[in-house]
Amino acid sequence: MSFTPRLQQLLSALRCLPGVGPKSAQRIAFHLLDKNRDGANVLVDALRGALDEVGLCQRCRMFAEDALCPICANPRRDSGLICVVETPADVIAVDESGVYQGLFFVLMGRLSPLDGIGPDELGVPLLEQQLQTGDFRELILATSATVEGEATAAYLASIAAAAGITATRIAHGVPMGGELEFVDSSTLSLALTARTAIEG
Amino acid sequence: MSFTPRLQQLLSALRCLPGVGPKSAQRIAFHLLDKNRDGANVLVDALRGALDEVGLCQRCRMFAEDALCPICANPRRDSGLICVVETPADVIAVDESGVYQGLFFVLMGRLSPLDGIGPDELGVPLLEQQLQTGDFRELILATSATVEGEATAAYLASIAAAAGITATRIAHGVPMGGELEFVDSSTLSLALTARTAIEG
Repeated sequence: MSFTPRLQQLLSALRCLPGVGPKSAQRIAFHLLDKNRDGANVLVDALRGALDEVGLCQRCRMFAEDALCPICANPRRDSGLICVVETPADVIAVDESGVYQGLFFVLMGRLSPLDGIGPDELGVPLLEQQLQTGDFRELILATSATVEGEATAAYLASIAAAAGITATRIAHGVPMGGELEFVDSSTLSLALTARTAIEG
Repeated sequence: MSFTPRLQQLLSALRCLPGVGPKSAQRIAFHLLDKNRDGANVLVDALRGALDEVGLCQRCRMFAEDALCPICANPRRDSGLICVVETPADVIAVDESGVYQGLFFVLMGRLSPLDGIGPDELGVPLLEQQLQTGDFRELILATSATVEGEATAAYLASIAAAAGITATRIAHGVPMGGELEFVDSSTLSLALTARTAIEG
């Protein structure tokens, strides 16, 4: 005795979702088939539509429905600046900060040799080619403040140097609104080391 | 600046999955669109297929691709016994135990008035009708050993009594292979209270 063939297929197909094992797949399948068929139908259509229409921007690897994403296609963005981030969500976050008007490059990950993620998986050749042929004056490295993020930033800085372009790293320190006693010690030591002079 | 329309649609559609909020939806969508498009295509087809073909068995509410599930359609099962369980997974578990050859009834949940889950949501009218018109000699209550599971069992026992059918509850106690020192105290007190005589 086991589940019906189509339910079995659904259970194994659900395993493609990140972090979903046999038990979660069952919970999701039972929920969709018994409690939320309307939602499941909407999900099928939305996933079908996204798979058919959403690809990566040829220039910055952001998710896009055309060859270029809205940012790369916007002639009013500062094409002398390029900001490297790890995920599409980071593009939105940096853009919403409101102080950045340049272009982006999305790595879709960070260097992690143990997981088999090297420069090729992150589209570094495409970035390198743009740095060499484009008219950039600054490469801003906005990868995450983790060990892998720092390693990725250091690697990309060396590529920028080879192309004769200034590389900068976003500042790390105490976040706005952060009470000092709740800030972890490595952030605090970084904030002290990178202290800046204030105008008297 | 935000994600493309189809990606936005996918992000909101993914919220129909149990326990998936905005952040998990992003993680799932990025993973499917960037890392595992093949898996996503398989998932779309499997979900479409399951939605179109998998329904509930008319008799026991188990997932089925025909009007009756394989167990209800099997004339060699003992049609005098009916075992009530909470989920389709419980049917598989009880069936695999090998000692039960009767029929099932799947509640797809348990009584939980605070969540708006009453007898109607659990298909109790269908069960009641079967108990009154069918030829059952015993109703086995295999709901879970939780407060709601016990309440559900007690409620169904009263319905069986009204239909003149013996209701039984599966035994609770120390699980096989269970070391006494690791068994929780409520299980242990239950096991002591429900002790049985052994043949000398």
